[in-house]
Amino acid sequence: MPLGRLLFDPPHSLAHQSWAPADMRGGGTINADGFGVVWYVDGEPVRIRRDRPLWSDADLPALAGSVSAGTVLAAVRSATVGMPVTESAAAPFLDGRWAFSHNGVVAGWPDSVTTLAGRLPLRDLLTLDAPTDAALLWALTRHRLRGGATLRDAVRDTAVEVAAAAAGSRLNLLATDGDTLVATALGHALSVRTGGGATLVSSEPLDADPAWRPVPDGHLLVATPSTVDISALPTSPLPTE
Amino acid sequence: MPLGRLLFDPPHSLAHQSWAPADMRGGGTINADGFGVVWYVDGEPVRIRRDRPLWSDADLPALAGSVSAGTVLAAVRSATVGMPVTESAAAPFLDGRWAFSHNGVVAGWPDSVTTLAGRLPLRDLLTLDAPTDAALLWALTRHRLRGGATLRDAVRDTAVEVAAAAAGSRLNLLATDGDTLVATALGHALSVRTGGGATLVSSEPLDADPAWRPVPDGHLLVATPSTVDISALPTSPLPTE
Amino acid sequence: MPLGRLLFDPPHSLAHQSWAPADMRGGGTINADGFGVVWYVDGEPVRIRRDRPLWSDADLPALAGSVSAGTVLAAVRSATVGMPVTESAAAPFLDGRWAFSHNGVVAGWPDSVTTLAGRLPLRDLLTLDAPTDAALLWALTRHRLRGGATLRDAVRDTAVEVAAAAAGSRLNLLATDGDTLVATALGHALSVRTGGGATLVSSEPLDADPAWRPVPDGHLLVATPSTVDISALPTSPLPTE
Amino acid sequence: MPLGRLLFDPPHSLAHQSWAPADMRGGGTINADGFGVVWYVDGEPVRIRRDRPLWSDADLPALAGSVSAGTVLAAVRSATVGMPVTESAAAPFLDGRWAFSHNGVVAGWPDSVTTLAGRLPLRDLLTLDAPTDAALLWALTRHRLRGGATLRDAVRDTAVEVAAAAAGSRLNLLATDGDTLVATALGHALSVRTGGGATLVSSEPLDADPAWRPVPDGHLLVATPSTVDISALPTSPLPTE
Repeated sequence: MPLGRLLFDPPHSLAHQSWAPADMRGGGTINADGFGVVWYVDGEPVRIRRDRPLWSDADLPALAGSVSAGTVLAAVRSATVGMPVTESAAAPFLDGRWAFSHNGVVAGWPDSVTTLAGRLPLRDLLTLDAPTDAALLWALTRHRLRGGATLRDAVRDTAVEVAAAAAGSRLNLLATDGDTLVATALGHALSVRTGGGATLVSSEPLDADPAWRPVPDGHLLVATPSTVDISALPTSPLPTE
Repeated sequence: MPLGRLLFDPPHSLAHQSWAPADMRGGGTINADGFGVVWYVDGEPVRIRRDRPLWSDADLPALAGSVSAGTVLAAVRSATVGMPVTESAAAPFLDGRWAFSHNGVVAGWPDSVTTLAGRLPLRDLLTLDAPTDAALLWALTRHRLRGGATLRDAVRDTAVEVAAAAAGSRLNLLATDGDTLVATALGHALSVRTGGGATLVSSEPLDADPAWRPVPDGHLLVATPSTVDISALPTSPLPTE
Repeated sequence: MPLGRLLFDPPHSLAHQSWAPADMRGGGTINADGFGVVWYVDGEPVRIRRDRPLWSDADLPALAGSVSAGTVLAAVRSATVGMPVTESAAAPFLDGRWAFSHNGVVAGWPDSVTTLAGRLPLRDLLTLDAPTDAALLWALTRHRLRGGATLRDAVRDTAVEVAAAAAGSRLNLLATDGDTLVATALGHALSVRTGGGATLVSSEPLDADPAWRPVPDGHLLVATPSTVDISALPTSPLPTE
Repeated sequence: MPLGRLLFDPPHSLAHQSWAPADMRGGGTINADGFGVVWYVDGEPVRIRRDRPLWSDADLPALAGSVSAGTVLAAVRSATVGMPVTESAAAPFLDGRWAFSHNGVVAGWPDSVTTLAGRLPLRDLLTLDAPTDAALLWALTRHRLRGGATLRDAVRDTAVEVAAAAAGSRLNLLATDGDTLVATALGHALSVRTGGGATLVSSEPLDADPAWRPVPDGHLLVATPSTVDISALPTSPLPTE
C-alpha cells in the first residue's frame, strides 16, 4: 500500500487528523507535537519522525508517494502537559523489527506505574526513549517480547496490567513486527477496515467507506493484511508468576 | 556579568569552543549537537537551549548582550554515539534552583552504572531528562541534594562514586544553585579565573589572560563570585551507609 | 510589563491563542507553525523565535517571567499553505531598532504584488527574510523607513498600497521601534487596552477586562505606553511621486 | 545504487565529510548546518532534508539502507556567516524533476550579483527558497531551464556568468534531472568515479579506490550512469542577446 494513501490522500488522512481530529476524548484539540511513520522494506523497519506538526514537512508528501509497503505504522502526537515535545518522544518507537505506538494517557503518571516499572531491568529504564508514559508502555511491552511472548500476548498483557495499575488510563496500544499488527481499544477510539488485500487500523476512519468498523472499547485487535481478529480483553491482569 | 562576555566576546568564547575546541580529550572534534545556557534572575534560573549548534542561533548574541547575571552556567554538547541529539538531552538540566551540566563520558554506559541507578527512586528513572549518561549523573546528584546534601558534597560524591563504578570515565560535573558553583575535574580539562568580582569556570580558558589557572585533574572546585577553593577529590567513594 | 503577563498569564494569553484562537477569520484553526517575541533592553531589540508551537517550549515561561519590558511585540504563526514552516519565516522580523509582524494573508501572492516588489532595491529582494507575504510586507515597510518615513506613515502606506494591489487581503500589520507601536486593522481582528501605564495591542483581548476595545476595521492604531490614537485608513494609496 | 553506499558506508562517506571534510578550501571546518538528499523514484524526486548535522539523524541510516536509486544528489551544508541556518536553505533545491546544489560561496554577495538577479522575473525573487547565494544560483539556473536550455547549458552558463560578475567566487554547481548529472568545478574540489554501471560525483572521493579522478578546476562535468564527459568551461560569459 502506498504510504500516501494513509497519510495524505483520504479525506480524514493522518495529515488531516493532525490538525482536525474528530475524536480526541478530552485529550487535547490537535496533534501538533510530532509525528512518526514506520514502514518495512525487506522485513526491516524504516522510520521518519519529527518533533513538529505532520503538515509542516513539505517533503513528506513526495516521500509518502514514493514508498509502498505492506505494513505501515504511523502516529501523530499531542503531548501531555509536562512531557517533553522532542523528536525522541515521538512514536513509533523501534527495536529490531518491532514498532510501537500509544494513543492515550497513563493516569497518575509516573507514580501509578512505578511498581510495574520496577520489574524492568534497570538498563531498560536508563535507556527509555523518553520520559513519557508512551515510552514506558513500550519498554514494558518490549520486555515481554524479549522474554519470548508473542506480539499479541505482550501487547494485551501490558495493556491489561497498566489498566489495573492506573485506573482511568486510556491505553490504545499499537504494535507490529512488520507482518502482524496488534492493537488495543481501551478508552480511545479505534477503527479497522479490511479489503483489497490490505488491513487499515486507525484511531478514526480515514474515509466514509462503510467497510470501516469500530473496535469496541475493551477489545484486542490482531490483524494481518488479510485477516482481522477482535476479542475481548481480560478485565484484570493474569497473576504474575 | 553580561552573558555575551562568556558566550561571544572572548577569543575562545563558548561560541568559538562549539566549532573549534582546543582540547577534546579524544571525545569528538566539535560541539555541534546542542547548547544550553542558564542564568539567574532574582534567584530563579532561566534557561534557553537548542538541539543545534550554538553558532546557528542568530538571535542569541542580542539576547546574551541584554542579560547580565551573577551566575551563568553554559554548555555546548557533543553527543556520544548512540545517545540522542535532542533538546531534552542538552545541558544544563534544571530542578528548582539547581542547574547541572556534564562534560565527558561514563565509560561502559549504561551497564557500568545500573547498580548505582538502582538506588534511585523509580520515579526519578521514569522521568530522567534523557536516556544519556549526563542525565543519570544529574539524577544521582539531585537525589543527594533532595536528601539534604550540600551542593559540594552531592557533586563530589556523585563523581567519586561513578568514577569507581565506571573506571575510565571522564567526569567533569558542573553544578550551581545560583550562588555557589561546584565542579569536578576528572579526566577532562577545567580552568578557573577570578577577578573583578566575578569567577569564571570553563573547560578551556576563554582568553589569554594569565589569571586563568587550570584545575588539576582529580580535584574539586567550589567557587563563588569572590572565592575559589580547590581540593583533591577522594580516590574512592565513602562507604554507603 | 513582565513578558509573562502577555504570553502566559491571562486567560486568553498568546500561549492560549496559539492552540485555541477565538477568531481566525477563515485563516486556519490554530497557530502552531512558529512563534516569536521581541522586547527592548536599553532601546535594543532582543528576539527569541522558533519554528514550532509556542506551547512546546518548556523554557519559555521562566524566560518570560524574568523579563520586563516597556515594549513587547509577540506573534504566533499559522503558515499559509505553500509557504515554508521555518524559523526564518516566523515574525517578528527585525532590522536595527524596528520590529515587524503581520497577521493575515496577501491575496493572490505572489503575482498580485510583483509590481510593488519591483520598486524595492534588488538587494532587499535577495535578502528577503523568507519567501512569504509577511516578509515582503516587512521589506516594503522597511524600505519606506529607510527612506525617512515615520513608522506611522511607513506602516499605513504599505497597508493601503498592498490592499489596493491585492484586493481581498487581510493586512493587520504591527510594527514598533521600541517606543511607539503602529498597527493596522484591515480584514482581521485587533484590540487595544490602555491603563496602568501600559498599552496592550492584540489580535484578541487577553482577558475579559472591559477596558479592551476593538479597533474598527480599516483603521490605523498608533500607541505609546500612555497614548492611543485611532484613525481611519485612507481607502486608496496616495499617488506615488 | 543503495543510498547507504553514498551516505554512510564508505570510509569518507558524506556522513564522514559532514564532520571531517578533508578539503574545505578555507570555507569552514565542518558541514554541520544542515543536509539534504534527493533520489528519484519513477522519475520523480524524493527529498529529505534537515537544518541539523547529518550525523544527528538516527533514522537516516535505515532509510538510506532501504532506498536504491539510479540517481542521488546529496549535500551537507556549512552556512556562510550571515546566511540563515534553516531547513529551507539546505540543498538540494527542487523544482519539478530538477534538483540543484551549490558548494562554495558567491564573493561579494549580494551586491555582486544584483544585476544578474535583476534579469529574473520578480516572482522568482519573491519565492527564492532562502536568502542565500545558493538559492539565487538555483533561481538563475532554473530560469534558463524554463527558457528551454539544456541542463548542461543552464548550469554552465550560470556558473560562467556568476564567476564573471563575482570574481573570487567558488562555484561548484551540481544539478540533475534524474537522468543526467551536470557539475562545475570552479574553485572547489570535485571528483568523479565510474564503474559497475554507476557514476559517483563528490566533492571528495568517498574511498581510496584509484578509479576516482579529480575534475580539474575550471571544468564542466556531464555524467550519466555510464558516461562521463569533462570539458573546459568558457572563461567568460557568452554575450547576452
